[in-house]
Amino acid sequence: MLSTFKRFLIGRPLKSTDLGDQKLNKRKALAILSSDALSSVAYGTEQILLVLVTVSTAAFWYSLPIAIGVLFLLAALILSYRQIIFSYPNGGGAYVVSRENLGENAGLIAGGSLLVDYILTVAVSVSAGTDAITSAFPILHEHTVLIAVIFVLMITILNLRGLTESASILAYPVYLFVIALTLLILVGLYNIITGETPPAVNAEIGTPVHGITLFILLRAFASGCSALTGVEAISNAIPNFKDPGPNNAAKTLMLMGALLAVLFTGITYLAYSYGISPSETETVVSQIAAQTFGRNFMYYFIQATTALILVLAANTGFSAFPLLACNLAKDKYFSRIFMIRGDRLGYSNGILTLGFASILLIIIFRAHTEHLIPLYAVGVFIPFTLSQTGMILKWFREKPKGWLPKLITNLIGAIITFIVLLILIITKFEQIWSVFIFVPAMVYIFHRIKNHYMDVGEQLRLKQDHEAIKIEGNVFVVPVAGITKVVENSINYATSLSDQVIAVYVSFDREEEKAFEEKWEKWQPEVRLVTLHSHYRSLITPLTKFIDTIEHKAREANYQVTVLIPQFITKKSWHNLLHNQSSLLIRAYLLYKRNVAVATIPFRFKK
Amino acid sequence: MLSTFKRFLIGRPLKSTDLGDQKLNKRKALAILSSDALSSVAYGTEQILLVLVTVSTAAFWYSLPIAIGVLFLLAALILSYRQIIFSYPNGGGAYVVSRENLGENAGLIAGGSLLVDYILTVAVSVSAGTDAITSAFPILHEHTVLIAVIFVLMITILNLRGLTESASILAYPVYLFVIALTLLILVGLYNIITGETPPAVNAEIGTPVHGITLFILLRAFASGCSALTGVEAISNAIPNFKDPGPNNAAKTLMLMGALLAVLFTGITYLAYSYGISPSETETVVSQIAAQTFGRNFMYYFIQATTALILVLAANTGFSAFPLLACNLAKDKYFSRIFMIRGDRLGYSNGILTLGFASILLIIIFRAHTEHLIPLYAVGVFIPFTLSQTGMILKWFREKPKGWLPKLITNLIGAIITFIVLLILIITKFEQIWSVFIFVPAMVYIFHRIKNHYMDVGEQLRLKQDHEAIKIEGNVFVVPVAGITKVVENSINYATSLSDQVIAVYVSFDREEEKAFEEKWEKWQPEVRLVTLHSHYRSLITPLTKFIDTIEHKAREANYQVTVLIPQFITKKSWHNLLHNQSSLLIRAYLLYKRNVAVATIPFRFKK
Repeated sequence: MLSTFKRFLIGRPLKSTDLGDQKLNKRKALAILSSDALSSVAYGTEQILLVLVTVSTAAFWYSLPIAIGVLFLLAALILSYRQIIFSYPNGGGAYVVSRENLGENAGLIAGGSLLVDYILTVAVSVSAGTDAITSAFPILHEHTVLIAVIFVLMITILNLRGLTESASILAYPVYLFVIALTLLILVGLYNIITGETPPAVNAEIGTPVHGITLFILLRAFASGCSALTGVEAISNAIPNFKDPGPNNAAKTLMLMGALLAVLFTGITYLAYSYGISPSETETVVSQIAAQTFGRNFMYYFIQATTALILVLAANTGFSAFPLLACNLAKDKYFSRIFMIRGDRLGYSNGILTLGFASILLIIIFRAHTEHLIPLYAVGVFIPFTLSQTGMILKWFREKPKGWLPKLITNLIGAIITFIVLLILIITKFEQIWSVFIFVPAMVYIFHRIKNHYMDVGEQLRLKQDHEAIKIEGNVFVVPVAGITKVVENSINYATSLSDQVIAVYVSFDREEEKAFEEKWEKWQPEVRLVTLHSHYRSLITPLTKFIDTIEHKAREANYQVTVLIPQFITKKSWHNLLHNQSSLLIRAYLLYKRNVAVATIPFRFKK
Repeated sequence: MLSTFKRFLIGRPLKSTDLGDQKLNKRKALAILSSDALSSVAYGTEQILLVLVTVSTAAFWYSLPIAIGVLFLLAALILSYRQIIFSYPNGGGAYVVSRENLGENAGLIAGGSLLVDYILTVAVSVSAGTDAITSAFPILHEHTVLIAVIFVLMITILNLRGLTESASILAYPVYLFVIALTLLILVGLYNIITGETPPAVNAEIGTPVHGITLFILLRAFASGCSALTGVEAISNAIPNFKDPGPNNAAKTLMLMGALLAVLFTGITYLAYSYGISPSETETVVSQIAAQTFGRNFMYYFIQATTALILVLAANTGFSAFPLLACNLAKDKYFSRIFMIRGDRLGYSNGILTLGFASILLIIIFRAHTEHLIPLYAVGVFIPFTLSQTGMILKWFREKPKGWLPKLITNLIGAIITFIVLLILIITKFEQIWSVFIFVPAMVYIFHRIKNHYMDVGEQLRLKQDHEAIKIEGNVFVVPVAGITKVVENSINYATSLSDQVIAVYVSFDREEEKAFEEKWEKWQPEVRLVTLHSHYRSLITPLTKFIDTIEHKAREANYQVTVLIPQFITKKSWHNLLHNQSSLLIRAYLLYKRNVAVATIPFRFKK
């Protein structure tokens, strides 16, 4: 039943040799890996205007030079990540780059930040997308949390089905969003050129503005950089690309950068030209669309694709998180369960963990995750800075042909991202302080996990000159509850394996004890019976005490003690409610608390 | 940790031989077993007036003859249950009486109704008590469900601690309630006699009332009978009494009947004399108390003890449910887990089941369980009728000395309870129809359970002439995952038990497979290694197929197959997250799906 349902949800299992088929071509990769970055266009310009409006609307012209600054940073990031893709063709992104060039802890800081960041990506994007939908259909507003959770579940299932299939489904909305915004920008520009749109009431570029400071401009710039979250996703996912992976990934990255630049510049320019001011009740993109087309089909089309891409931006997290978790697990910093490929060849444990964690965040924050956005930006710029710094050291150490321009590219990137990081920390400390707790905590946990695996390896390793102690003989202890077929089976099995079989009967009543001893003597005279009296109606306490005695004696003679426990296998699962589950209890207790082997022999009821 | 917490909650375990000490004397028994019946006084009169008011307030004088009718029924029930107590000194009440005299299904109908009824007792009483508290302190109103759940948890814990201790705690409120109501009645009567209270505006007794019908009078009578729920509790609990059980129980029953009669008559008479009309916002008892004392300390004392006894009425359910469940289990109609005495000698599984089920009802109905009251009354009158009918047949069959008056007593009781039952069904069908579904369903389940236990007994029984098939030899299958100390341990253990040991290696990769075979050949040349290739990255599928082959061959030669699975026992429990729990998975799968023994040998990590 359960397994049929699983098949229905995620499809039939795939052979390991099918792995190649699941890889992404550029068109699908762009759809699957860039929704996070491209969806940032929906709020990037707004973030800049929200800072400038604190001075005055006259300051809005600064959004154009700030956007150019962001574009410059974008170019630096894209070029830098392009270099990373070719230098690290196996993926891993910021984690691998930082670890190899800056050392273990830098790598773990980058890895830890990114893991948390992907969870935030999912929670924030899905919540924002849900908000867009519930704004369009207010009747759904009270079900926001439920809708967001359903979206996460759907994306989780799509990812469990496997990369290619999810990419086919996800490709349409991403391309629709790109088409919709491109149309919006083109029509908007046409209107401006033909003069159909009334001239902007905004101040001319270069107008002096009273009260503007460098600090405010830097803050506006840092806020605008939220449009850059998600550009690192491609460099983490190179192994998912069709061969040649690095070439395809680099081309996809450039294409994504170009699209992001065009859309971001276009939206920012239209916002300036239309004289749009950020509003509590309507997004900047919505205002631009309404002014360009009026509230007709095109307006709703743009709003719908925006909502959709925000929800699908979550999918970037689903592509990147499992791969990063697997990379950390390969280096023994994370549980090895993240290295297992599921039925459909995805890293299902990573997918499920991400789905579960983001649903938890959505429920805890009741889908009001807006104040997580600065945290999310910090979580991105920490690995940005670390990986670019790592690349600088790499060029400096290795000095390959033409290394100086490459070093300068990364140096500029490192300086800018570091400044953005500092500005984020200074201007939004009350929203991001927790990063200083959870990132060190994660690094600590990574080390603890690695230590555990090292300890385990040490304890499992066979030493060269080591000789195993031979087991000289076996003692079987068989708890019996009566004279029945089950007991007969167990005694049969035990005597077939060893001469030393001891049946143990735990009694709660002195008289019944004697009667049982007499019956046993008649039935199985060759098997020694020990009766234990239980004052407190517990099976485990007297049994454990007895086994301790036996085990103590056995160990002196290099004998191994095995406790044999029969287990009823009922015909129907509800029958289990009708039997004490003492066999399971005894087994778990002995195995975890005592040094004995535990054998279980099934007794299968036929009705 | 967990076990320390358990000790703190319920106290140290008691020896089985302490059982005598836990029995109840009459004073404690009255407190513990009568709170349900006595608390009915708080709403019995009100139920009568609520029916009469549908005609006119002039009809209120009928409450006095109706109360006399209820008293008559009460007397009949008390006398009948007194006879039951002496005839059935081992308790069991309606279930045992009906089963022995009317047959299996009548007994099961009585038993099933009572089981559900005790759950309703707990849910309804606790909710009503909580309502009384939240009415006094409106600030608590939004936490009604939480408060009710906490009350149930407290009562559950008190009952898990054991009967005597809970009785000591519960004795005070019950006696305080009796004292409070007695004072109320005495002061009220004194006021009436001395003429301090203005003469009632009610119609004189015997005044003709327009519109009154026999049907309405019977309905009022049936509603008033809700004051009688809970009188059967003592007859179910005779084994809990100090010796001589039946004598003590009978005396306690008479005393409870007398108290109930006095309180019910007194409240009904005061209500009539004061001319009180039932109100939506204030209970009848509250109106009487306010008119007698004014809203001073005595008023709040009466309200508080009323609230408290309603909550504690739930305790009657906790005394009776576990004993009835144990009686049903002894007769194999119910899971045998209800026969086990816990650490403090109470039937803990029954106590826990009742606590859980009533919390569930409270949460589902959000503590608004008022409309469950008619259901609860029907659930009581079904076993009343059945047990009295059973007693009639018993007297008729056995004809002991002086049987005729006894038979007449029960006959009168049976007729009245049956009429009340019919009236309840006719006048409140929309609220009680579900009883016609769940009682047959429970009877069906009881039969299914009994059938299962009979089947199990049959399958476990050793036949006289039966000879067990000897096991000719043993094959050990050891799944191995590498060349480590764990594997060495397992192979050592298996070879100490049998010559036929097969190591099985499941590989996901052809090349690694060959390398492993070569390494194995060097390391353990005497132990046969079988490698299985897994296309779908599953351990269980190839392993199961292989074991099927082995098992098939083994069975032909009367060999037993044992699969040996090593299990890591980690030093700290969080370490379990760092290892695949495949050993548990394989073990469960093989044990439940295949006919092999499964042995587990622990490998304990030291750090």
